[in-house]
Amino acid sequence: MSIIEPQESTLYQQLAETFASAIHNGTWAPGSRLPAIRRVAGAHQVSVNTVLNAWQVLEDRGLIEARPQSGYFVRTVLPALAHPRKHLTEVTSPSSEKLDLIDTVFAAQNHPDYTNISLACPQNTDFYPVVKLSRITASLLRHHPEIIGRYALPPGNERLRREVARRTMDLGFSLTSDAITLTHGCMEALQLALRAVTRPGDCVGLETPTYFYLFPLLASLGLKSVEIPTDPERGLSLDALEMLLREKRLNALIVMPNVQNPLGCSMTLADKKRLAQQVNQYQIPLIEDGLYSELQFCWPLTPAVKAFDRDGWVMYCSSFTKTLAPDFRLGWIAAGRFTAEIARLKAVSSMAEPALLSETLAQFLASGGYDHHLRSLRRRYAAQLDEARGLIARHFPRGTRATLPQGGFVFWVELPGTVDSVTLFHRLLQEKICVTPGELYTLSDRCHNALRLSCCYPFDERYCYALKRTGALACDMSGLAPGA
Amino acid sequence: MSIIEPQESTLYQQLAETFASAIHNGTWAPGSRLPAIRRVAGAHQVSVNTVLNAWQVLEDRGLIEARPQSGYFVRTVLPALAHPRKHLTEVTSPSSEKLDLIDTVFAAQNHPDYTNISLACPQNTDFYPVVKLSRITASLLRHHPEIIGRYALPPGNERLRREVARRTMDLGFSLTSDAITLTHGCMEALQLALRAVTRPGDCVGLETPTYFYLFPLLASLGLKSVEIPTDPERGLSLDALEMLLREKRLNALIVMPNVQNPLGCSMTLADKKRLAQQVNQYQIPLIEDGLYSELQFCWPLTPAVKAFDRDGWVMYCSSFTKTLAPDFRLGWIAAGRFTAEIARLKAVSSMAEPALLSETLAQFLASGGYDHHLRSLRRRYAAQLDEARGLIARHFPRGTRATLPQGGFVFWVELPGTVDSVTLFHRLLQEKICVTPGELYTLSDRCHNALRLSCCYPFDERYCYALKRTGALACDMSGLAPGA
Repeated sequence: MSIIEPQESTLYQQLAETFASAIHNGTWAPGSRLPAIRRVAGAHQVSVNTVLNAWQVLEDRGLIEARPQSGYFVRTVLPALAHPRKHLTEVTSPSSEKLDLIDTVFAAQNHPDYTNISLACPQNTDFYPVVKLSRITASLLRHHPEIIGRYALPPGNERLRREVARRTMDLGFSLTSDAITLTHGCMEALQLALRAVTRPGDCVGLETPTYFYLFPLLASLGLKSVEIPTDPERGLSLDALEMLLREKRLNALIVMPNVQNPLGCSMTLADKKRLAQQVNQYQIPLIEDGLYSELQFCWPLTPAVKAFDRDGWVMYCSSFTKTLAPDFRLGWIAAGRFTAEIARLKAVSSMAEPALLSETLAQFLASGGYDHHLRSLRRRYAAQLDEARGLIARHFPRGTRATLPQGGFVFWVELPGTVDSVTLFHRLLQEKICVTPGELYTLSDRCHNALRLSCCYPFDERYCYALKRTGALACDMSGLAPGA
Repeated sequence: MSIIEPQESTLYQQLAETFASAIHNGTWAPGSRLPAIRRVAGAHQVSVNTVLNAWQVLEDRGLIEARPQSGYFVRTVLPALAHPRKHLTEVTSPSSEKLDLIDTVFAAQNHPDYTNISLACPQNTDFYPVVKLSRITASLLRHHPEIIGRYALPPGNERLRREVARRTMDLGFSLTSDAITLTHGCMEALQLALRAVTRPGDCVGLETPTYFYLFPLLASLGLKSVEIPTDPERGLSLDALEMLLREKRLNALIVMPNVQNPLGCSMTLADKKRLAQQVNQYQIPLIEDGLYSELQFCWPLTPAVKAFDRDGWVMYCSSFTKTLAPDFRLGWIAAGRFTAEIARLKAVSSMAEPALLSETLAQFLASGGYDHHLRSLRRRYAAQLDEARGLIARHFPRGTRATLPQGGFVFWVELPGTVDSVTLFHRLLQEKICVTPGELYTLSDRCHNALRLSCCYPFDERYCYALKRTGALACDMSGLAPGA
């Protein structure tokens, strides 16, 4: 900050108050962009510096936020969530009620008549280059129909593995194709990784909250879990992890260092380095879920933890299902020191991935179309997240908080403590609206008032109505008025 | 047999001797068809009955065999294999040498430069309706490109499950589509079935010899196995099974009642009924591998054990990878009382199968093209098996025996006891020929002189050369001359 003249000091504070009132009374709605600084300076007859100082005041108060290359925006809802109220380092297994709740929510999420504002799988044609992919597949079938008659074998189509290997450079590590095994989506990559490095009864460290499908996956493998405190802005607590590692209480660890599901946050570069160093030092396999890494809003992408993996303890898992072709279900794993074991497990688990689909993706990647597609997807999701947060700010009960994702399309909403999100889920279901209650994302009772929401669908009337209706019901249940 | 006149008695015996000599000296080569009975009767000036009686003598001596609707053929090699020399009901786990050998053979089988006369996955365009399938896929992509952009969910494409359900009638059981979960090939069906009904440390009953990839699969799940005597003509010994069930030594059972791999045999109808009754009585899950059931040479098909499953203890697994579209890797499981558990496991293991491929198969099945395709495939494999057995009879060492498959394209060859098939495998590999040593198919040392061979490839010069060369090397190793 530059030193401020006394007269200027009054001016910028006055300006800040003017805009603060305008924000509070809704003249500048949550999520809207403030006018350009020069325009404000001109209109209010003050210097650019004065406007900058005023904006600083508003930013400090949490009313506005700067976005690189975009300007200043009225903050939608507060990005910071309360930190976990206690350390959750007890070993747990999911109750049958928890597993039943997961089944119920999963079934509801996939009900064709429901408006889904939480499912993390975009189902819209405009979002994917389906026409280009179709053309590649059709051309392959025309010129090489024999591809259908061949038996695909692990580790999978060489050309696709080469393209995947080449792309790992964007995430800070450079592999060759033989370090990669193709899998049936990221789900199978996680499943194989766990089977490669654990035995029933073992204990796996998880973020909290974490991807809810990990609970039935761990249960199906007879694995227990420990939930490690996870900051909604910085991700996994490495101090808590250090403690667990020192006490030898973990056999493996699953982390989403970039664009965490459900929080949307990414770890800092320093934390990623430290995490890589920790798992190498303690020789504990880290299963890095990179599903949303390529949907980070920043460019160049921030690196994966795998980029700092010295001795091959990091098993990097990812997939094209969320970014390119959901139906193809093509995922991959770069399993470091466990590569041979993973290839063997893949063969006895489901053999290999179809060459037709693999070759289609490989040709699409080689054409350079993927980067272009990712750029437009990132822009779209960033804009939709902002709109969704704006709606929440206006329609959810006062005191509601939501995370500010670093990429992707899911975010985490904490409602006032009196709102039970499982009850809210059931009430909304009667109106054919589907949300995901926070309880799914932890085995503790800590997230009873949270929701995971998603904005991967087109931002149409139906979606907006469902989001507003969720807010209205939450206001009803909490007795609180809407508004940030 | 009708009562034979004294004079006729001499005549038919003379005729039998004449033909026996002609078979022994190669006038009638192994695998060749004998002339029509009326023609023989005319040529030798005897009654049709006399010829029939002479053929009965030759059949009893194992020199010729009747084939329904085809006439009489010179038997290629003896179909009966020695019965297992001892009961193999000890609980075992594969040694690391065994698992390494499986890896070595698997790698060799998939080497593009090797002539493969043992791999059980046909890789030839003419064998599959790839053009028809390509057209369906291309048309789907043209009219519904959005199919690629959707996220497939378990239990999988409804239309394909309906078509599969409809087809189960041919195997004697009639299911509805919700009894079926689509899987990533039959391998995943087996894997999920095992995970649904066993815990590490459990013991699984297997046929012996059995599909060799079951050993690493069981090892990856921490399961032990017991090998149950299996007759090369009738399949699993149900008396031995009864003993194990009574002693409560099995937690699950994997059986291929139709067209067993590697033997090629099918169980009798009475045995199938008894097996269904046993697993229902003792409440032991039976994983029925029906991979080759639709490639039975008889029509109508003989039923599956699932057809007699009273209380849902039979989990029927199958796939289209061996019969229709290897690259699609679409399998399915009808898991009886474990259906809900399987659907859950599939979701956390690899989610679901691509709608594009599933819908393609569903449309192909609905068009009726599959039955036509199966008929031509069965005819082709029956003819090729016969040719292969003929070559073996002429080129393998005297005393070699081979099974007479009831369908499919794999068969089992027992070489003279002095030939070690692992040594033979390594010698042949130096000449870029790949066979599968019998040792792979058991954890015992009982099959050291056996090979599994396959004739799913076109019967070209390369294949014939490799088969003859295998015989020549075996003659070399045994010091025996070729010829049945």
